Amino acid sequence: MPTATPIAVSDAEVSALAFDDRGLLPAIVQDHGSGQVLMLAWMNEESLRRTLETGRTWFWSRSRRELWCKGDTSGDRQWVREAYYDCDADALLVVVEQEGRGACHTGERTCFYRAFGEGQEWGPARGGEAPDRHRAEAG
Amino acid sequence: MPTATPIAVSDAEVSALAFDDRGLLPAIVQDHGSGQVLMLAWMNEESLRRTLETGRTWFWSRSRRELWCKGDTSGDRQWVREAYYDCDADALLVVVEQEGRGACHTGERTCFYRAFGEGQEWGPARGGEAPDRHRAEAG
Repeated sequence: MPTATPIAVSDAEVSALAFDDRGLLPAIVQDHGSGQVLMLAWMNEESLRRTLETGRTWFWSRSRRELWCKGDTSGDRQWVREAYYDCDADALLVVVEQEGRGACHTGERTCFYRAFGEGQEWGPARGGEAPDRHRAEAG
Repeated sequence: MPTATPIAVSDAEVSALAFDDRGLLPAIVQDHGSGQVLMLAWMNEESLRRTLETGRTWFWSRSRRELWCKGDTSGDRQWVREAYYDCDADALLVVVEQEGRGACHTGERTCFYRAFGEGQEWGPARGGEAPDRHRAEAG
């Protein structure tokens, strides 16, 4: 099992972030090994702090209105390796080691498995092999 | 100069997207060659259609309340190679060939050049060499 690597974060760094009027920031999750973009979810300040302190990804569910830790139910945990914020401090990028089948609840490795046009259904750049459809069916 | 590669998109695909209550979706922009995550910006339906039809990235500026085409001012244009939507149809991933210095208005190649903790300032996975600080100063 991968190990957790907490990232020390200062209050100054967190207070400089531009959370939106719902108190949220979009968080991109990228695979450390392949560079594949795995998913986009939302973090509030509490979920960001937990993510950096525990080394696992925590998000805010806008529909359920609760914090959730990726993989607690599915086992498909994400182990944080690097975390970045952008030039406007209003978006996050979390680079992870993805455990288990992948990031998507459908069984795909990435949530971005559907391409516009041409009915392409293979994954995005840097992890572009065709997904194993049987995994999704067995998920 | 890179060439534009329009992506044919059906009205059914666009109408299936879950734009938020502002009519927007977050759009991740990823470098086709390196896999580096370059930026996150916002698209409404019009900017998504223009992006796919013209093969250049178009976004909606929430602050200026207008459409803008990346690179029209700076020359740092993005040429679309692949475009994806996620399992919930509420986030976009656009894979591009980045022209010019990079995606960030600061002169950095990626907008995600600041890491949490430890004062790291090199870029995210798959493009992780140290940025040339002189480019930013000259930008």
